[in-house]
Amino acid sequence: MSDVIVIGHKAPDTDTVCSAIVYAAIKGYKAATPGELNEETAWVLNYFKVPAPPLLQNAAGKKLVLVDHNEPAQVVDGADQAEIIEIVDHHKMNFVCNTPIYVHVEPVGSTATVLAKKYADWVKNNPTYAGLLLSAVLSDTVIFKSPTTTDEDKKVAADLAKIAGISDIQAFGIDIKKAKASIKGKPIADVIHVDFKDFDFGGKKVGIGQTELIDINECYDRAGEISSYLNELKAGKGYAMVVFIGTDIIKEGSELYFAGDAAVMEKAFGKKPEGASMWLDGVMSRKKQVAPPLEKAFTS
Amino acid sequence: MSDVIVIGHKAPDTDTVCSAIVYAAIKGYKAATPGELNEETAWVLNYFKVPAPPLLQNAAGKKLVLVDHNEPAQVVDGADQAEIIEIVDHHKMNFVCNTPIYVHVEPVGSTATVLAKKYADWVKNNPTYAGLLLSAVLSDTVIFKSPTTTDEDKKVAADLAKIAGISDIQAFGIDIKKAKASIKGKPIADVIHVDFKDFDFGGKKVGIGQTELIDINECYDRAGEISSYLNELKAGKGYAMVVFIGTDIIKEGSELYFAGDAAVMEKAFGKKPEGASMWLDGVMSRKKQVAPPLEKAFTS
Repeated sequence: MSDVIVIGHKAPDTDTVCSAIVYAAIKGYKAATPGELNEETAWVLNYFKVPAPPLLQNAAGKKLVLVDHNEPAQVVDGADQAEIIEIVDHHKMNFVCNTPIYVHVEPVGSTATVLAKKYADWVKNNPTYAGLLLSAVLSDTVIFKSPTTTDEDKKVAADLAKIAGISDIQAFGIDIKKAKASIKGKPIADVIHVDFKDFDFGGKKVGIGQTELIDINECYDRAGEISSYLNELKAGKGYAMVVFIGTDIIKEGSELYFAGDAAVMEKAFGKKPEGASMWLDGVMSRKKQVAPPLEKAFTS
Repeated sequence: MSDVIVIGHKAPDTDTVCSAIVYAAIKGYKAATPGELNEETAWVLNYFKVPAPPLLQNAAGKKLVLVDHNEPAQVVDGADQAEIIEIVDHHKMNFVCNTPIYVHVEPVGSTATVLAKKYADWVKNNPTYAGLLLSAVLSDTVIFKSPTTTDEDKKVAADLAKIAGISDIQAFGIDIKKAKASIKGKPIADVIHVDFKDFDFGGKKVGIGQTELIDINECYDRAGEISSYLNELKAGKGYAMVVFIGTDIIKEGSELYFAGDAAVMEKAFGKKPEGASMWLDGVMSRKKQVAPPLEKAFTS
């Protein structure tokens, strides 16, 4: 077996983990994860009876394929002392290297979509892996509700569902989301960090966490707790701003909690925050609807 | 017709121009060039009776596909005010954007190789464009002598030659190279700038020009003239270093002329320069054999 390791981003989600597993299987590489799986991903792997990839928290000295990310801040620790040989992704590029490597990025709803298109012939004969890719598409596009969703994601999902023997895509998507879509009884630090990404916006360190919920009232009930944790995080870790996105996947909108300059939030989203948060109707995607306006507000 | 423009890098070469023309034809886009064509490229277009793409020296406000480059320093002027929707390339990545776009990069000998592989079915039915791609592969790999050459380049070239009706690939490659492989009677500034690229090595501006020759003695005869022009260029344009690579494609090596710190050259290439230049046996590729060690010498 090859010594190449396929690995997703820190704070792994279903797309990054499933894409790593499937791409490793296609290429004869090994898969790994830089962090513990979240409840949704664990539910998906359990559903398809696929073992979790081993944890790799420092990749120094390894040969890596990065899936579902390319920004240095999201890469596994030690990657600066690893050899990155390939990138498969669906995010904006922020990547510099010293030698030409394989890079395949498409502006679609999930990395799984990129893989399902490129390796359609392989996937056709591997229903379990088709199921993992379907789960990843549904997870990353929030069952096609995220504005990152493209027609290709829907087409690919329909094909994958047939191969995997999933008859009701919507119902399967809600099953996946239910596994993680509640913060009841969870420590607030865990809630905020389960899907948390660091960004560099014009030299400023900005952290953005996101949780999807079936009912946003779960956030409203714990607003004070959320805000004090964000302020603590900002002060302790040198952030210019920390944002937590509570996304109601039924109402299709998000409450944005923040610790930082309210004027920057207003500049970014064209709406005055009420206290330490603001509701944004229709906003569901950190990548497409939260990070870009925030970056613009910080850099322009 | 779409308003998308496919464009190659500044100081255009045969790969960048032919790849732009062919990709524009495949996609129904328009091709453009950010600078005048060199003699080699003009010879190739004339051979296949394909008109030169129009000159576009400022791309502000346009929608662009970049072929054969991605580094900001090599992109057409005004690109910071253009929308870049896609990149097809075979160079190292040094690209940052605010939104996900299509990126397709492979570590092969030419961008033409990437296109010929991906659009094999289309190319099969378009012998003229197959001829352009073949010319680009032969040009960028220096008829397979450059260390950037991969088995895929050779395989693709064999297929393209069949489609284009070129029976002797080697002879055709030498015909292409002959069109530009002499500096006799040319002003030295033109010789140095015809294929000249700016790099940013750890914040230092470094310029590297290259010319291929059938006989390196043409450089030796004008060594003084080359050196004084490089020194003038360095002083006048704020370069930390300017290098000119005279590559003898028959002897398979290069004389590197430079204006700048001789100690950096020695650090980069492990050999003490004799005066203002040094011969490096086997060195033919700026991208693979000159730029990376120089970058390392400047940054480590």
